[in-house]
Amino acid sequence: MRDFLPADKARREAILAVIRGVYRRHGFDEIETPVAEDSERLHAGLGGDNEKLAFGILKRGLTHDDLQAAREPLDLADLGLRFDLTVPLARFYASHRAELPGVFRSIQIAPVWRAERPQKGRYRQFVQCDIDVLGEPGPRAEAELLVATLDAVDALGLEGAFIRVNDRRLLIGMLATLGFAESEYDGALVTIDKLDKIAQDGVLAELRERGFTPSAVDALEAFFRRPMTMEFLPFGEAAIRTALPDDPDPEAIAGLVAIGDAVAAARGSDPAEVLLQFDPFLVRGMGYYTGPIFELAHPSVEYSLGGGGRYDGMIGRFLGTEVPATGFSIGFERLVELVDLPDAADGDAVVLVHDDVPLASLLELQRSLIARGSRVRLVARPKSMRTTLDALAAEGFTSFATVDATTTPESIEFRAFG
Amino acid sequence: MRDFLPADKARREAILAVIRGVYRRHGFDEIETPVAEDSERLHAGLGGDNEKLAFGILKRGLTHDDLQAAREPLDLADLGLRFDLTVPLARFYASHRAELPGVFRSIQIAPVWRAERPQKGRYRQFVQCDIDVLGEPGPRAEAELLVATLDAVDALGLEGAFIRVNDRRLLIGMLATLGFAESEYDGALVTIDKLDKIAQDGVLAELRERGFTPSAVDALEAFFRRPMTMEFLPFGEAAIRTALPDDPDPEAIAGLVAIGDAVAAARGSDPAEVLLQFDPFLVRGMGYYTGPIFELAHPSVEYSLGGGGRYDGMIGRFLGTEVPATGFSIGFERLVELVDLPDAADGDAVVLVHDDVPLASLLELQRSLIARGSRVRLVARPKSMRTTLDALAAEGFTSFATVDATTTPESIEFRAFG
Repeated sequence: MRDFLPADKARREAILAVIRGVYRRHGFDEIETPVAEDSERLHAGLGGDNEKLAFGILKRGLTHDDLQAAREPLDLADLGLRFDLTVPLARFYASHRAELPGVFRSIQIAPVWRAERPQKGRYRQFVQCDIDVLGEPGPRAEAELLVATLDAVDALGLEGAFIRVNDRRLLIGMLATLGFAESEYDGALVTIDKLDKIAQDGVLAELRERGFTPSAVDALEAFFRRPMTMEFLPFGEAAIRTALPDDPDPEAIAGLVAIGDAVAAARGSDPAEVLLQFDPFLVRGMGYYTGPIFELAHPSVEYSLGGGGRYDGMIGRFLGTEVPATGFSIGFERLVELVDLPDAADGDAVVLVHDDVPLASLLELQRSLIARGSRVRLVARPKSMRTTLDALAAEGFTSFATVDATTTPESIEFRAFG
Repeated sequence: MRDFLPADKARREAILAVIRGVYRRHGFDEIETPVAEDSERLHAGLGGDNEKLAFGILKRGLTHDDLQAAREPLDLADLGLRFDLTVPLARFYASHRAELPGVFRSIQIAPVWRAERPQKGRYRQFVQCDIDVLGEPGPRAEAELLVATLDAVDALGLEGAFIRVNDRRLLIGMLATLGFAESEYDGALVTIDKLDKIAQDGVLAELRERGFTPSAVDALEAFFRRPMTMEFLPFGEAAIRTALPDDPDPEAIAGLVAIGDAVAAARGSDPAEVLLQFDPFLVRGMGYYTGPIFELAHPSVEYSLGGGGRYDGMIGRFLGTEVPATGFSIGFERLVELVDLPDAADGDAVVLVHDDVPLASLLELQRSLIARGSRVRLVARPKSMRTTLDALAAEGFTSFATVDATTTPESIEFRAFG
């Protein structure tokens, strides 16, 4: 977990404001949930491996006997810090459905916590920027998510970002066609998800080692090695069918094609620009996905900047009634490293360097400048004027004035730094 | 802990933006610290009664043996959720002092957590808005805090707010003059702090019941009953001396007078306007205060909206070197109930009601309107148009258009609601 100093904090908030603004213009609404959820809900099997990384919050009023009677740590925690924003959203929607529109488009920009082992680029507290569409079963929801996400990334000046897409049903269909047994699907997907890291040979070796149906693994190997046309196919039905074994789920394909057409039309883009890329081996870790899945990529980095997918079954777990849902989550900590926004115009920002000025006059002067719209920092005359002014310039202050007891708002003369 | 629906979330963020903006113009800088601090630091005796309300976070990787060996719950928690923003600030400053200006003015706007018993108006997660000045020993720091706070409250349209002030040294001086023993000071202040709730007779009865030096309690009674001039004295030396027993600390009085003069000058206010009010019995709960203390009041409510004071000893606890410090914390949850900001101008916010429009055309239309600066919500033609439009109007949307497959950005015609 990290502290953010003023410059970092300002940069982060400026980037979040851009993202929030784009999402709002796309018709999404921001909500907020508490940082803690009931332990039972956090450990209901909806968070995949992240559940194991949830921080538990100690029950209040525990006695020594309670400690002795506990069989495992979780017995002592009735609440936990959320590990994502999806489980809290499902709980929120189940609690407040009557107060929300039939199709609810939510924005959540908030920290989550995971007990990761400390390593570069992994934090135990980090911010996610999620948008979700609840109550819309069709591809309109995914198209809105993807256009809004691409627009947000554009607004941050990250040109060249694109989204990898797949559909959970196509993944399952592929495994079935290749000959995996139904009981093997989840396990095989865990290995296939490592394709980026261990490559095709690594995946095949691991599947064989883990004892999956040998003929199915052979079929996967043949599929990996199949002759592929080197011709580039733009995102669409032909590209999707070319990348898959025979007999893919036609409904899943129709959905992806509709999403692709809508994204291309909305973006009015050069047909050669890659906005979406079909990736038949995109898995996304979470078991709760039921339809289209996506991952935000940028040519400058190996890792994904975010992702999401359709999770039609989850809200029903809390509400009792099924509600279709799909969402896209930007991993803010990764994004923030890549973005270089121009400094926010903070209006006029000035420094009053003072020395032996009566306090009342000084504050009167400051407030009269604030009243005309300036940001005003008071600084007692420093030993090294140069060092101090440099630091203030780095903080975004633009000019300064040395003031004394006779200075008035009318007589004050500002000088630029440097 | 509460969920915030879109309208509430927008209202809260708008109010926070006003407060943040005023504080920034006053030359303060926003920082952020993690929600969790080391248990040891949270339980170092700096948080008063709030320490007992800290939520502990379970250590990771605890075994059954660890649970058996634990003597008390805190043995199982290495981190806890912060109960205020002052302890984290002191830790932050001690960690980053070299990267911060000599006088550091911080803004922290963030949630804190306390295991309060559920009751009206008390929440387990709530937001505080703190400003602090670190590194400035004199009344300039307090004057800046108070002017910034009064300006923030003004900017929220809360006219008539004022600040009660006292000085911890005057409180102690009063107890000494009345004849309390030094060992009785802290205990007597706990009772005197209840003056608002149990009135003078209640305070005297409790002090007697708890066995404080009888002659001192008698002297307090006489002081309570002394004949007072009914004439209103404006904040200043005369008012302060009139409200205290003999021989008050002259340095404390000089500080308060300097603060009062500076606040009055900065605000350029009508001399009859009450900005500061001296309250000789203002205690503020925390034992760490060492100088001026303050509380934000508003005539419309009994409770305080915030408060603070000078805590010169605390940073030294973490840093080893003493650093003068003073801060003011606004209790946001109480403030938010009183404030009625005009709706934020969100620019143009429109609704596209659609029915049988191809998805690609619909999203193209939406994005072209977004590109010209509108917030655009898509809504499938509802069963009850009236109900839907009313809900959207309540959400801040201002006009709508019914679109079909032939609608273009040029041909679209918006109608106002209602």
